[in-house]
Amino acid sequence: MSVTAAQGFSAAGISAGLKRSGKPDLALVVNDGPQHAVAAVFTSNRVVGAPVVWSRRCAQNGTARAMILNSGSANVCTGPDGLQDSEDTAVAVAGELGLAAPTDVLVASTGLIGVRLKREKLLAGIPVVAAALATDSEAGAAAARAIMTTDTVAKTSVRTVTTSEGTFTVGGMAKGAGMLAPALATMLCVITTDAVMPEGEEGAKRLDASLRAATSTTFDRIDSDGCMSTSDTVVLMASGASGVHATAADLDQAVHDVAADLATQLLADAEGASHDIAITVTGATTEDAALAVARAVSRSALVKTAVYGNDPNWGRILAQVGTVPESVAPFDPAQLDVSVNGVMVCQAGGAHEKPDDVDMAANRLVTILIDLHAGNAEVTLWTNDLTHAYVEENSAYTT
Amino acid sequence: MSVTAAQGFSAAGISAGLKRSGKPDLALVVNDGPQHAVAAVFTSNRVVGAPVVWSRRCAQNGTARAMILNSGSANVCTGPDGLQDSEDTAVAVAGELGLAAPTDVLVASTGLIGVRLKREKLLAGIPVVAAALATDSEAGAAAARAIMTTDTVAKTSVRTVTTSEGTFTVGGMAKGAGMLAPALATMLCVITTDAVMPEGEEGAKRLDASLRAATSTTFDRIDSDGCMSTSDTVVLMASGASGVHATAADLDQAVHDVAADLATQLLADAEGASHDIAITVTGATTEDAALAVARAVSRSALVKTAVYGNDPNWGRILAQVGTVPESVAPFDPAQLDVSVNGVMVCQAGGAHEKPDDVDMAANRLVTILIDLHAGNAEVTLWTNDLTHAYVEENSAYTT
Repeated sequence: MSVTAAQGFSAAGISAGLKRSGKPDLALVVNDGPQHAVAAVFTSNRVVGAPVVWSRRCAQNGTARAMILNSGSANVCTGPDGLQDSEDTAVAVAGELGLAAPTDVLVASTGLIGVRLKREKLLAGIPVVAAALATDSEAGAAAARAIMTTDTVAKTSVRTVTTSEGTFTVGGMAKGAGMLAPALATMLCVITTDAVMPEGEEGAKRLDASLRAATSTTFDRIDSDGCMSTSDTVVLMASGASGVHATAADLDQAVHDVAADLATQLLADAEGASHDIAITVTGATTEDAALAVARAVSRSALVKTAVYGNDPNWGRILAQVGTVPESVAPFDPAQLDVSVNGVMVCQAGGAHEKPDDVDMAANRLVTILIDLHAGNAEVTLWTNDLTHAYVEENSAYTT
Repeated sequence: MSVTAAQGFSAAGISAGLKRSGKPDLALVVNDGPQHAVAAVFTSNRVVGAPVVWSRRCAQNGTARAMILNSGSANVCTGPDGLQDSEDTAVAVAGELGLAAPTDVLVASTGLIGVRLKREKLLAGIPVVAAALATDSEAGAAAARAIMTTDTVAKTSVRTVTTSEGTFTVGGMAKGAGMLAPALATMLCVITTDAVMPEGEEGAKRLDASLRAATSTTFDRIDSDGCMSTSDTVVLMASGASGVHATAADLDQAVHDVAADLATQLLADAEGASHDIAITVTGATTEDAALAVARAVSRSALVKTAVYGNDPNWGRILAQVGTVPESVAPFDPAQLDVSVNGVMVCQAGGAHEKPDDVDMAANRLVTILIDLHAGNAEVTLWTNDLTHAYVEENSAYTT
């Protein structure tokens, strides 16, 4: 399934020898049309990999025919040689598929930073992966496996939407172990749909709006360790092959649901974590204010180690809430309520129910609810606890 | 030594029964004059302890007679009762010392958040600690011991400055285990001097300027785990008892040196750390730009775990540098150099010397030098690595 669930897409995943383990490391996704609309969202880091430089430029006109993705090397901080590697990869794919313009081929890479990718092996793998292209569900699954790095499972998701015209499909694949794995744990995601887009500019705009709305409330609300990758890439391609016109609302919902499902899978696969933490901030003046408070709490090493220790330490939570400037999130510190797993351990800025009443050991999920009592906006942000396994993975097994 | 090194100050430290361990937990520092100038810097957290609310108000007029400090409870998030506890403590000290105004007594508390302090024991301890007041070096040492929480050693420092008029002294004590210990690891610091201040407003301004200049380049440049305490308090008191007028430059230097020495001691006592990390950013357009880049790097869990693993992972460093917005720190990502322990592992944004050439295991100190090649400003920020011991301390031993 995954990227081949929607009509008009073929895919493949093979082992090109980029990974020392010999596991699959090269994936190709091709949009066979009739439409070739694309939207993309990239990391906001100023230090970005060559593939991001290349793909950002290619996606600008709103059309793309194919996307090639490799694991084994991120091709980041590799200078002009790295840029050449990405361009040459796109040229080779375009040649293999008989495309006129290499700029119709997006490129994504994930793996170690500062190391040139194995160029010859990658280029040699392109005819092989192109020959393996297929439209069945196994082809989509193979592509999803080939982009895995420290992921323990491949992540795929599919939604179908029935309209008066018929049914259209949105499917996707993603990799990334919730930012908890070594080497920055780049998040890559490819979503495909066979819904018909309006022609030209309008279609590109709708696809872009749909993707940005989805990522802003899904991938952007997972913040595992506060670190920002140099390579994060989320791409949405539309083929129009279903012949079904999607309303903006229907498309938005389906793309959001696929993105949300994939984001949840990324979080669940966050190695090194013993708890997922859902931080909900309510009573904020604006959604941005709620998000700023949630982010401050999600980035506290003290809060995250307390959760690891199954300690509903509301003092540490309040201390993080207090670091958000009043200009960003107005609230009265004396009005703050904090509940952990449904038990209100802090009311009006002071101790309330007994921390001993909070059972955190029973479930992987821990919920933290912070009520600012300043407005009506609400946001939920997802993170993980900070564990011995996190320290182990990120100190012992790199470079 | 410590706060009694300067003439005109008496101090004491006793066990009042606030700590279950029976260790010293109540300190008193009295400025016997003839001058009673004071300056204070507090945490910028919006959630603050009752002692911060009280002391901030008291220090506003630039004069204070005494400061009472307790460990065992931070008196934070304790509501109106907590405020009353701080005020009553000041009233009791004023009564014991025969002072007209309780607002001449600053209060500081450190320990757990959200728990009322043991009010009766604290009030009962005040006559005892007042009776123990002395001006010798042992009295200063006793006060320094009484403010310890997870600190393994008491931190004190003294500087003397000889001028044409004679010699004046600056001495101080501090507690805090580099923000690495449980329960937010409040940093408290009291510095005393017997230098003569200009009378009135001018003296208060000079003292305040001296303290702010010192803290901004010492305590403010230690950032162990990115967490901000609810109780951080740094106080500078001047008695004028030496009869020696200090120039602003002489005073600034001596106060800076004492603060820098105490800050270094805090860092060295950061339990849970195996490496101190000095992050120097050079070639910045402004000092603020350099500091923003250094802070971004110092707050990366991925950089800090890499250092713990003795891995000069410059890719993770560049990725953090890249998170700083261009409006804050202009630089060209393709121009960045990174050296670890003197070995330039990254030049012009790409791999340079071999990471294997970097020996990080030999010393506790690890130096990271980042050259932005954008200007002439430079800053050094100090932090620690992220270790199993940090996770252990902050997950297993709280509440």
